[in-house]
Amino acid sequence: MTSGACARASQACDEALVRAFQILGKRWSGVILGTLANGTLGFAELRRQVIGISDSVLAERLVELHTAGLVERDVRPGPPVSVTYQLSGGGAALVPALHALSAWALGNLPSAQ
Amino acid sequence: MTSGACARASQACDEALVRAFQILGKRWSGVILGTLANGTLGFAELRRQVIGISDSVLAERLVELHTAGLVERDVRPGPPVSVTYQLSGGGAALVPALHALSAWALGNLPSAQ
Repeated sequence: MTSGACARASQACDEALVRAFQILGKRWSGVILGTLANGTLGFAELRRQVIGISDSVLAERLVELHTAGLVERDVRPGPPVSVTYQLSGGGAALVPALHALSAWALGNLPSAQ
Repeated sequence: MTSGACARASQACDEALVRAFQILGKRWSGVILGTLANGTLGFAELRRQVIGISDSVLAERLVELHTAGLVERDVRPGPPVSVTYQLSGGGAALVPALHALSAWALGNLPSAQ
């Protein structure tokens, strides 16, 4: 982690923040990564845990996150074929920041209830 | 910060992460907050620094962030009337997580160049 460097070089970090939100600013991307932080999952189980997402949007986001190198896709030949998803090293490196976001939301955003 | 608590209570933290991305999962919201982390700004200067945003989207995001209690709006009667925007306490509490996201992007997302 280089957050000390970020505090000093705000221009480069603003640019990096834009890059971070090109991924995380798309609906569900952050929640999908946060869900995979708990372990490897198949498509159906991932969809069940990301409450409210549709099949098509989940499929689209997984392609984007795989293309960005944040999620790995593991296909085991069947039958039946088994496809599972897990965080790559780059995706796993995001987990501490996701925990910081969760903690912030718990303390600073009102619950829907 | 309670990220230790988050690591232990993943269900509550997943729910909080959903809440965080209801705000940050909208295009530009995170970048606007990150820009205001550098100091109080008027609308025109904020628009100049958030490169690529339109007047209407910036205005819409500022209303949302103000409604969520993350940005304060200060109006000084003129003439000319002066309106400035700054992070609230809740918005400022997000800054360490934004720095963590920047550092992650620097290390894990390829630059556009």
